[in-house]
Amino acid sequence: MIDFYQGHTSTCSGKVRLVLEEKGIEYNEIAIDLFSGDQKTPEYLKLNPNAIVPTIIHDGEVLTESTLIAEYLDEVFDGPQLRPSDPLALARMRRWPKIIDEETHPGTLGVTYTVVVRNIMMQKKSEEELEASFVAMPDQTNAARLRAMQFEGVESEPFKSGVRAVENSFRRFEAGLAQSGGPWFMGEDYTLADSGVTPWLMRFENVGFQGMWDDKPNLAVWWERIKERPNFVGVVSRAIDPKSLSSRAKFGAEIWPRAKQILAGD
Amino acid sequence: MIDFYQGHTSTCSGKVRLVLEEKGIEYNEIAIDLFSGDQKTPEYLKLNPNAIVPTIIHDGEVLTESTLIAEYLDEVFDGPQLRPSDPLALARMRRWPKIIDEETHPGTLGVTYTVVVRNIMMQKKSEEELEASFVAMPDQTNAARLRAMQFEGVESEPFKSGVRAVENSFRRFEAGLAQSGGPWFMGEDYTLADSGVTPWLMRFENVGFQGMWDDKPNLAVWWERIKERPNFVGVVSRAIDPKSLSSRAKFGAEIWPRAKQILAGD
Repeated sequence: MIDFYQGHTSTCSGKVRLVLEEKGIEYNEIAIDLFSGDQKTPEYLKLNPNAIVPTIIHDGEVLTESTLIAEYLDEVFDGPQLRPSDPLALARMRRWPKIIDEETHPGTLGVTYTVVVRNIMMQKKSEEELEASFVAMPDQTNAARLRAMQFEGVESEPFKSGVRAVENSFRRFEAGLAQSGGPWFMGEDYTLADSGVTPWLMRFENVGFQGMWDDKPNLAVWWERIKERPNFVGVVSRAIDPKSLSSRAKFGAEIWPRAKQILAGD
Repeated sequence: MIDFYQGHTSTCSGKVRLVLEEKGIEYNEIAIDLFSGDQKTPEYLKLNPNAIVPTIIHDGEVLTESTLIAEYLDEVFDGPQLRPSDPLALARMRRWPKIIDEETHPGTLGVTYTVVVRNIMMQKKSEEELEASFVAMPDQTNAARLRAMQFEGVESEPFKSGVRAVENSFRRFEAGLAQSGGPWFMGEDYTLADSGVTPWLMRFENVGFQGMWDDKPNLAVWWERIKERPNFVGVVSRAIDPKSLSSRAKFGAEIWPRAKQILAGD
């Protein structure tokens, strides 16, 4: 049994949950509500000093970082093997979660804030209250990013660079799938590359940005295949209110036409 | 025999070379001079479409990404084992190269440009020529970063956020070494965590920023130990002109006092 500290719709939590479901590992889901600040309680910070999800506890041992947790679960538990046994293929498989961690995920933070969080914040707080919260942040580099996205929205540099980074990574996924010949990133076998990429397409579909794979036929077909797999239930928590997912698409649909222009170089 | 495409002082190349030296793997060094644009020749782009170093060819197979190459070499070649065999310890060992890849390395790019590249560029080109080269770049997000560092130097946002990111990662290294009890990141055994972190302290020492570990006693002791190891010769290429390394320290020493203020929150 795994204690699984997670956010219901968090991408990195989805990465781990898909592996738990695929391998049939029993898990006990503990909700960390990032909007309420659950990740900053003293109890949680003891488990995860970076104040992020997910975290797992297995046999009393704490483990963080979704990419590392996914490899650990695959190594320790029975069920379908999700990594190639050949060292060269293994190194090549690992490129895909690495692109997610270094390019897609940081870019996604900019898009999600601008599309979703920005609007929720505007409903909750006045401009003055928002500015006061940015001024009070210990990390002023991050505060400057958030301020730009909050007040300039889709025209802010963090949104633009974020959506461009995601586009660049999605192009690499398209090329990788074209090269492998499918159905999966590594060819015949579904691996941690596939489970690792899945939550990010889910996120962009949820925020109404599914136009991002209109010009990527291999990625589009892969995504439809992914949704038919039994483990796809793990992409978000079973405890999620479906309405909270669908409400995001409205915000995104409004700004997608402008995002498309930005991706076209305007 | 490994064909090793590398930059003489590139941090990520150093990460791989330290493993080659530690395990006693024969390698054939092929110089990619990043200043001359060797990484953008059609021949090299075929091997490494991201136009970065290092790349290895082993048994005719091309492999990129220094962290993945390091694991591959440890798995495939004899010599000292550089990864724990216990899955939990392995996952924990992998946190350190991951911090390098996601926090230290991106931050270092901002510092190295501001301390070293900026000055070389100023000697080679006029302000007008520099501006023209930024305007011509296909990636305008990156161009904006480079422009800020070139013209605002140590007061630019990319320098400030870069040096803060490196400081944050060095604090995590200090805490990790305090917790392990040393002598190495994982305790008694020298692992890919140690070889993976080494080139970044080398870089900061080379640019005159060794003050970054004045307040980090465990990291400072670890660094002295690291320099005594036989494989340390691999941190840079044997073909390097030692003068080109020492010339960097002068630039850095001039701006280190200001960098220290920035790290203190000023």
